[in-house]
Amino acid sequence: MSQFETSVIVSFGDCDPAKIVFYPNYFRWFDAAFHRFCAARSCSQERFEQELGSVGAGLMEVGARFKGPARPGDALALRLEVSEWRDKSFRLAYQGAIGGVDVVEGFEVRGLFVRDGGDRLRAAPVGPLRALLERDDDGARSG
Amino acid sequence: MSQFETSVIVSFGDCDPAKIVFYPNYFRWFDAAFHRFCAARSCSQERFEQELGSVGAGLMEVGARFKGPARPGDALALRLEVSEWRDKSFRLAYQGAIGGVDVVEGFEVRGLFVRDGGDRLRAAPVGPLRALLERDDDGARSG
Amino acid sequence: MSQFETSVIVSFGDCDPAKIVFYPNYFRWFDAAFHRFCAARSCSQERFEQELGSVGAGLMEVGARFKGPARPGDALALRLEVSEWRDKSFRLAYQGAIGGVDVVEGFEVRGLFVRDGGDRLRAAPVGPLRALLERDDDGARSG
Amino acid sequence: MSQFETSVIVSFGDCDPAKIVFYPNYFRWFDAAFHRFCAARSCSQERFEQELGSVGAGLMEVGARFKGPARPGDALALRLEVSEWRDKSFRLAYQGAIGGVDVVEGFEVRGLFVRDGGDRLRAAPVGPLRALLERDDDGARSG
Repeated sequence: MSQFETSVIVSFGDCDPAKIVFYPNYFRWFDAAFHRFCAARSCSQERFEQELGSVGAGLMEVGARFKGPARPGDALALRLEVSEWRDKSFRLAYQGAIGGVDVVEGFEVRGLFVRDGGDRLRAAPVGPLRALLERDDDGARSG
Repeated sequence: MSQFETSVIVSFGDCDPAKIVFYPNYFRWFDAAFHRFCAARSCSQERFEQELGSVGAGLMEVGARFKGPARPGDALALRLEVSEWRDKSFRLAYQGAIGGVDVVEGFEVRGLFVRDGGDRLRAAPVGPLRALLERDDDGARSG
Repeated sequence: MSQFETSVIVSFGDCDPAKIVFYPNYFRWFDAAFHRFCAARSCSQERFEQELGSVGAGLMEVGARFKGPARPGDALALRLEVSEWRDKSFRLAYQGAIGGVDVVEGFEVRGLFVRDGGDRLRAAPVGPLRALLERDDDGARSG
Repeated sequence: MSQFETSVIVSFGDCDPAKIVFYPNYFRWFDAAFHRFCAARSCSQERFEQELGSVGAGLMEVGARFKGPARPGDALALRLEVSEWRDKSFRLAYQGAIGGVDVVEGFEVRGLFVRDGGDRLRAAPVGPLRALLERDDDGARSG
């Protein structure tokens, strides 16, 4: 299965008055990790548009469990794995740790969305995306 | 069960290059709805600290399903319901609609966190919070 | 001169560990106010694209002075004024107050950007935008 | 003068429907760079609180000029310099470049804020902060 690792330095502004990470930021970081993973496999947003005819790998469902707090200055090590490919969706599993201690685990279910005439979007088969992402599966694994 | 409704005007800056809402913003709006709900029942962050001895109603688990896109200028009607009280956590259910069409549904499981010596946090019984929030259950329902 | 007023409820998540608004949010709110102002005059992003041939009213320069803190739950009254029209730019002045007390004042200088072949952008004359925005100058002033 | 360099990978979610960085994010990155600069000199938020008796180095005034667009995947090299020390404030100058081409320059004027009884804040002399930050002026310069 495709894996990827990246890291985030938690900043003061990522935290709320409880002095821990304001939780929507974890999803911002999940999404950024997914896009870095794609970029590491030469699969940019332009490629989604030009080769796959898609507006992007949009979200169908997401979730996260918070196991411990993260604070300003913490280095969050974020690990992503494509955990399942279905016909019209795929699932990403995320794990985030600080100093070896898990603080968050989450997932995203994404589809490959194409315009269905005008402004409507529909999910297309994800096979072509899988081919792109797994082509370089022995290539760069981190960034 | 306690319910609350609020609304959000989706702005240009809330949207990403696919021209739809960047999804972590939904959680930002869920969280804001929860805090408005608390405020409408006179349960501010100060009260969490002073009366409940808590740093706040922190997150344990969250999730969302995206059913349709939201775009700049859309008015998102957001409905919140406290759907379950447990001993040391409670669950909030969220539904967001645009023009009567559901675009997102989600949930948050929150605990009442107290400092456990130094920087560590632990979940305390949520009964005192429930008492505060339900005291005015026939009161203001929107904002 | 064109004016507009809107308001923002400061949320817990808009604030940082110092328990006051994390300052980049003020610019998020300035930008949202500008887009609501445009929308109130029927000048949506679609209109920027279709009638003005523009990718949008992009930013050239911005600034803000912070005069007092804003905290979770505060209602920020935000006032916008188009303070100057030049050939290829226009200036917006912003004032934000809480309970009648000024907490922020700022400005944005925006241009009407058009694609200049490929990915490059250049500023076009803003006259057509001025005509659109001032056409309804006696119309709706708030939202 | 104290200098510092850091970098940011622009993510999909940092960009708006015009497919370029949503501008408030630059200020988020300026602020994060300042906090990394402080951390590189062992001056954390805890130190602001415990040694300087301050809630933090809060903002008085900020500004930015945008010279070119930044897009998803771009690596933004961000340079910070403490450009001026006054009695109760100091000024930071920022420059951001992509591939050697300037895309943004900005500034922040910050004060060392202390609680003035209750919730009010006032600016204290910044000398003690200057001493902390310049103590290691021959030390680590990037991060």
